[in-house]
Amino acid sequence: MANIAMLGSGFIGRFYAESIHGQRGRDRVVAIYARSEKNAQKFADDYGCDFWSTDLEAVVSHPSVDIVCIALPNNIHETAVMACVKHKKAVVTTKPLGRNGEEALRMMQAVEEAGIFAGYLEDLCYTPKFLKALASVKEGALGRILWAKSRETHPGPHSSWFWDKEQAGGGCILDLGCHCIEIARNFIGKDIKPIEVMCWAETQVKPIDAEDHAIGLVKYENGAIGQFETSWVFRGGMDLRDEVMGTEGTIWINSFLRTGFEMFTTGKGGDYIAEKAESNSGWLFPVGDEVNDLGYNHMFTDMFNSFEQGKTPAETFYDGYVVNAVIDAAYRSAKSKQWEKVDLPVWRGKEGLTQESHLQEYDADHYLIKEEMTHDGRQVVMLKEKASGKFVEKQLN
Amino acid sequence: MANIAMLGSGFIGRFYAESIHGQRGRDRVVAIYARSEKNAQKFADDYGCDFWSTDLEAVVSHPSVDIVCIALPNNIHETAVMACVKHKKAVVTTKPLGRNGEEALRMMQAVEEAGIFAGYLEDLCYTPKFLKALASVKEGALGRILWAKSRETHPGPHSSWFWDKEQAGGGCILDLGCHCIEIARNFIGKDIKPIEVMCWAETQVKPIDAEDHAIGLVKYENGAIGQFETSWVFRGGMDLRDEVMGTEGTIWINSFLRTGFEMFTTGKGGDYIAEKAESNSGWLFPVGDEVNDLGYNHMFTDMFNSFEQGKTPAETFYDGYVVNAVIDAAYRSAKSKQWEKVDLPVWRGKEGLTQESHLQEYDADHYLIKEEMTHDGRQVVMLKEKASGKFVEKQLN
Amino acid sequence: MANIAMLGSGFIGRFYAESIHGQRGRDRVVAIYARSEKNAQKFADDYGCDFWSTDLEAVVSHPSVDIVCIALPNNIHETAVMACVKHKKAVVTTKPLGRNGEEALRMMQAVEEAGIFAGYLEDLCYTPKFLKALASVKEGALGRILWAKSRETHPGPHSSWFWDKEQAGGGCILDLGCHCIEIARNFIGKDIKPIEVMCWAETQVKPIDAEDHAIGLVKYENGAIGQFETSWVFRGGMDLRDEVMGTEGTIWINSFLRTGFEMFTTGKGGDYIAEKAESNSGWLFPVGDEVNDLGYNHMFTDMFNSFEQGKTPAETFYDGYVVNAVIDAAYRSAKSKQWEKVDLPVWRGKEGLTQESHLQEYDADHYLIKEEMTHDGRQVVMLKEKASGKFVEKQLN
Amino acid sequence: MANIAMLGSGFIGRFYAESIHGQRGRDRVVAIYARSEKNAQKFADDYGCDFWSTDLEAVVSHPSVDIVCIALPNNIHETAVMACVKHKKAVVTTKPLGRNGEEALRMMQAVEEAGIFAGYLEDLCYTPKFLKALASVKEGALGRILWAKSRETHPGPHSSWFWDKEQAGGGCILDLGCHCIEIARNFIGKDIKPIEVMCWAETQVKPIDAEDHAIGLVKYENGAIGQFETSWVFRGGMDLRDEVMGTEGTIWINSFLRTGFEMFTTGKGGDYIAEKAESNSGWLFPVGDEVNDLGYNHMFTDMFNSFEQGKTPAETFYDGYVVNAVIDAAYRSAKSKQWEKVDLPVWRGKEGLTQESHLQEYDADHYLIKEEMTHDGRQVVMLKEKASGKFVEKQLN
Repeated sequence: MANIAMLGSGFIGRFYAESIHGQRGRDRVVAIYARSEKNAQKFADDYGCDFWSTDLEAVVSHPSVDIVCIALPNNIHETAVMACVKHKKAVVTTKPLGRNGEEALRMMQAVEEAGIFAGYLEDLCYTPKFLKALASVKEGALGRILWAKSRETHPGPHSSWFWDKEQAGGGCILDLGCHCIEIARNFIGKDIKPIEVMCWAETQVKPIDAEDHAIGLVKYENGAIGQFETSWVFRGGMDLRDEVMGTEGTIWINSFLRTGFEMFTTGKGGDYIAEKAESNSGWLFPVGDEVNDLGYNHMFTDMFNSFEQGKTPAETFYDGYVVNAVIDAAYRSAKSKQWEKVDLPVWRGKEGLTQESHLQEYDADHYLIKEEMTHDGRQVVMLKEKASGKFVEKQLN
Repeated sequence: MANIAMLGSGFIGRFYAESIHGQRGRDRVVAIYARSEKNAQKFADDYGCDFWSTDLEAVVSHPSVDIVCIALPNNIHETAVMACVKHKKAVVTTKPLGRNGEEALRMMQAVEEAGIFAGYLEDLCYTPKFLKALASVKEGALGRILWAKSRETHPGPHSSWFWDKEQAGGGCILDLGCHCIEIARNFIGKDIKPIEVMCWAETQVKPIDAEDHAIGLVKYENGAIGQFETSWVFRGGMDLRDEVMGTEGTIWINSFLRTGFEMFTTGKGGDYIAEKAESNSGWLFPVGDEVNDLGYNHMFTDMFNSFEQGKTPAETFYDGYVVNAVIDAAYRSAKSKQWEKVDLPVWRGKEGLTQESHLQEYDADHYLIKEEMTHDGRQVVMLKEKASGKFVEKQLN
Repeated sequence: MANIAMLGSGFIGRFYAESIHGQRGRDRVVAIYARSEKNAQKFADDYGCDFWSTDLEAVVSHPSVDIVCIALPNNIHETAVMACVKHKKAVVTTKPLGRNGEEALRMMQAVEEAGIFAGYLEDLCYTPKFLKALASVKEGALGRILWAKSRETHPGPHSSWFWDKEQAGGGCILDLGCHCIEIARNFIGKDIKPIEVMCWAETQVKPIDAEDHAIGLVKYENGAIGQFETSWVFRGGMDLRDEVMGTEGTIWINSFLRTGFEMFTTGKGGDYIAEKAESNSGWLFPVGDEVNDLGYNHMFTDMFNSFEQGKTPAETFYDGYVVNAVIDAAYRSAKSKQWEKVDLPVWRGKEGLTQESHLQEYDADHYLIKEEMTHDGRQVVMLKEKASGKFVEKQLN
Repeated sequence: MANIAMLGSGFIGRFYAESIHGQRGRDRVVAIYARSEKNAQKFADDYGCDFWSTDLEAVVSHPSVDIVCIALPNNIHETAVMACVKHKKAVVTTKPLGRNGEEALRMMQAVEEAGIFAGYLEDLCYTPKFLKALASVKEGALGRILWAKSRETHPGPHSSWFWDKEQAGGGCILDLGCHCIEIARNFIGKDIKPIEVMCWAETQVKPIDAEDHAIGLVKYENGAIGQFETSWVFRGGMDLRDEVMGTEGTIWINSFLRTGFEMFTTGKGGDYIAEKAESNSGWLFPVGDEVNDLGYNHMFTDMFNSFEQGKTPAETFYDGYVVNAVIDAAYRSAKSKQWEKVDLPVWRGKEGLTQESHLQEYDADHYLIKEEMTHDGRQVVMLKEKASGKFVEKQLN
């Protein structure tokens, strides 16, 4: 059983608390820090916390607290992490880890030097669908991974600090792209080095300084490509989809708008209020159990189990730092309009990979291009003659 | 925190234990009864039970046990419930409650007389999608409910006792229809009396005595219709869908084959093994988190919370008894080839309802039939003249 | 090239004309009959007809007309067909053929005696998806067909005569069920005799005499089951789905609300008008090419090719008559509340079938019930011992 | 009625002929040119052509020919077009127009100088779904268009010449990207200038010189973004999807793998052969009517109607040239690793656009960022204070 201090009483802090208390969970949020007394007190009432305060260190250092959970705006992550380091408290932090690679690296190094447990709350790398998909990929169901895309777009965040570039550190890339980048990195392999990034980012609609729409490509050392598509100006709800291509298969995951629950309502039948939809009538596509389907339950289970068993969780500060480094390159690329190297002063995976050789031999004289069943029922192979480089079709039946 | 004794170490007992221990759950399966020593011991090892036995009463009466969870073949439910009654232990029972209405009524009356807590483990009335859908229906999002269908078909059950009519008490109606009937009953209203049933049932494919395919209609006192479609001979995986029609809306739920996770694999990339699919290659449609998506978590949460707080759970022995009575009528109808009355010696809901009047007035002289936008952009209403009974179309724009 | 006379200038007549003129089609609608001069003239203008009249026989007997296309209310079909018989004109008629089996039988016998070409315009048995599905079924992709369901529900028809039981002859069973019955009959086999029908029908919502919601089961001589679900009170658009179960496979066809075109609009961007949807904002699901996707093009191609080549089209007056006979039994069953025999004074298919034997032998001593891959990776077969009737599970790996 | 000469007897020539003859079409393929006698003769037999030859000019200049349809490998397009110019024959050409912008520009200028009718056979800009989507966009259903993506990936082309860079002129960008670029250009507006392109392209799997996977972004002068995703190494069938984002809405089109037709087959039931699928068993997703659903019918209708009426078709050689110019920039970008300007020596659309101002005023002192319904039912607006630049949340209910 773990006693948690929550730092931050906003939307995400509440989501976390609901997951932790969950379905008869044995862990408890025992303390809450918020910037305003009113919010702290309200949160403490709602979730049965024993202790609340507007003094961050008082909460972090409270003796009943085992683990500190940071659910604060991006610009306060480092301060909060350093408070945990100072008081040697285990810490888990919401995404993104920092506003940039430098902040993230400092946090990573500080927790490692302090020897405290530190987890990176990348919930979308813990959704049940993602976990199953990743397991299938690791078992080889898709062969060699060629491309992994993740898309997260919606009509914009809930809290006002997101819209302020100083507090947030960036726009939708930092807010949403951090998920997408880490999702792709998992599918491609966490030990494969992201080497360069090409990114387009623009403020297309909103009256803000940060980008509200961005698309990026991340090239990995083995030739695989990660892709992120993020936006705060999507209409129709929340679009949360992953796609993976491998030499032997394909994965498509839809985590929100099309998960098998469809409702039409004229809106005349009652006071029905739709969640996370842009209207209360017409066709609506609710998600069954957001807290579970978005990965919060499996995430905290991994975090608290790892903490208790002295193990490393699946998502660490190191991962958060790699993601921040990729995002930094994305921002540089959006300005320079060319591919930008990912700057990774610390790298713990493989080095020196090349794109794996991909020639598939058919027989001594030919490479295989493709096998297929034609329109008219013929089974054919397309071959390349090694000697001449010519392309020949051969019918098998 | 609840200490549970599991009776039965098969497929469903294991599913239950996994849900109860779940994501850092605080409840524990502390004792296990199985008919064979080997199975009891294996289960105890796998789930960390303190006590195992092949003596059912020894397990039920074990002092550390708070709640008994019956996960046994249908023909042993009554015996097991009576053991709980004897030892005054709280009990929750897998579906269907009995093999028929008489058994179910006896169990219901026994637990009520004994004053013990008793819950009916109707997991599919606890899936997150179902709970949200039901809440929407209760808020009026669909208006007056006209029809509620539930379909559960798959290629046949796992354990051999299901195929034996004596142990099971019936075929796919009893095994799967119990879910479908209770789902529809929830949408239509548990206080609305099911009055008669029309059912077709046949053994179309399997070498068994019981039906392997059945379709039924359940008429409720207010004119609403429940429909069940059940089969053990469906090909393609598990088809689990609900559909609800109301005067103001529609709900479609797909709980298995189309939930937003799609994978194609050639099967050549590794040792990948697909779950609950009929093959390991081609397009596959896994479910993210079966234990949660099929309702087990929310079900046990309701059961154990209700037990601790002295409340009635959402699904009780009374509900199980009503379902069994509907199933009895279905079996009679399949033989008699006509609508058969539902025999409910105990009924605790509304009585004497008629089909609600449904005439929607347009103005003093007309009823409204329909408003629509035509192909060519005209907004029209279709009306019925009260006096003449004639139908007239009126253009509004 | 065929010259067509259209009888009826309403919604369906226009749809037919658009299909016939289609994408640079070579056939022409040269004459139009409507009950009102205004409508006849308007139709003639819109589709370039040479001749229009409010005198049905004048149109039918016009010398330039090769084929008469009946697109009139149900109660005028017989009169119109008899005019074609009198003038020996080829005739194709919209669905249902008659208001009941007697009318339909008279029409069938009249055209056969007259020796004129006669086609039944059952468009939903000509949709591209249906044609491919039927071809797959005939090639054996689904094995033995066990069940074929067709569902057609929407918020009610366009023209006022549909709501009038005298003109229409019935409600949604006659209007929509005729499609569903013939679709199932095709999948099960047109030579298999429909023997009895069980039907529930009710006026749940609309101020009309006819049923606005009905569900029926049609039992075929070989044990297969057809199912129809029809309603005029569905909310959310037009629900048009077929499902087929066979011993070796499954088919699901969605012909309207989910065909791969999804649009969300706030409705604030312009004067956009959605077709066949219940609103102009929110999530909408248009069909790409209704005339083609609903089967009109392939239907008229078959009709006119058959006419020119002296062949029988896929859907004939005989088929229309069988469907009417099934519908008659459905109406009788809705009243009698029991299964009703289908009355077929003329039957041209197989006779005396029984449910095919379905015992699949595993080895000399066992029948096979099921092969499966379990949760934990074991490959098992479920068998029934021939001698004892006992059920045994055997692990293969 | 049009008499067509087909140049090329391969896969695409046959597809074209089937569309033209179609459902009782009035147009005819009367002559065929193929490089081999055998193929020419076979095609003439299959489609009832009066004349066949291996001499291209003999076919083009044949007196009975009204329109020449070029269905040849990319490297012969210019030669074939010039033959039409020489003989003043109307011409329609398969996609891409040329292997590069220079070839395309020469062809465009030649047909314009010759004053002959010339159409660009961009079928995917004529699919029924695309046409309806485009009409909705033009009516404003999506507001201002921000992004338009088109994805076309499959396991590689049928004919061997595609794999040969010399004949094809490139890889999947040229083969598939030409569709994607023109689709996005239509949604964004054909009068909006594509100004620069960023592209990643790689040979990830196949033993060929050209790229087998590529992703690109096309920036338009008004700030909108087109995106193409193309590959010859996708597994699972043909993935053909478009997505459009506007300020007021979203469009998702799936043209192949998920169009409402789903079939499961064990493959044991017969000799069933699946089309365009990678296997003959498991879950398959056929398309109803490929020729119509992929746009061929509407395309030829527009082409032949335009030819007869002396009008410009929706897709012209000018469009083909713009697409080729965008592709050229994509290839340059894939090498240079930076955004590359689109070189358009001829441009006939708008000039000098800037990204439209997008600040939405809420009141005199604030811009509106977002309106939303929160989790807990509050209606809130997120605003930006014009003076201070601060972000404030305001509750409306």
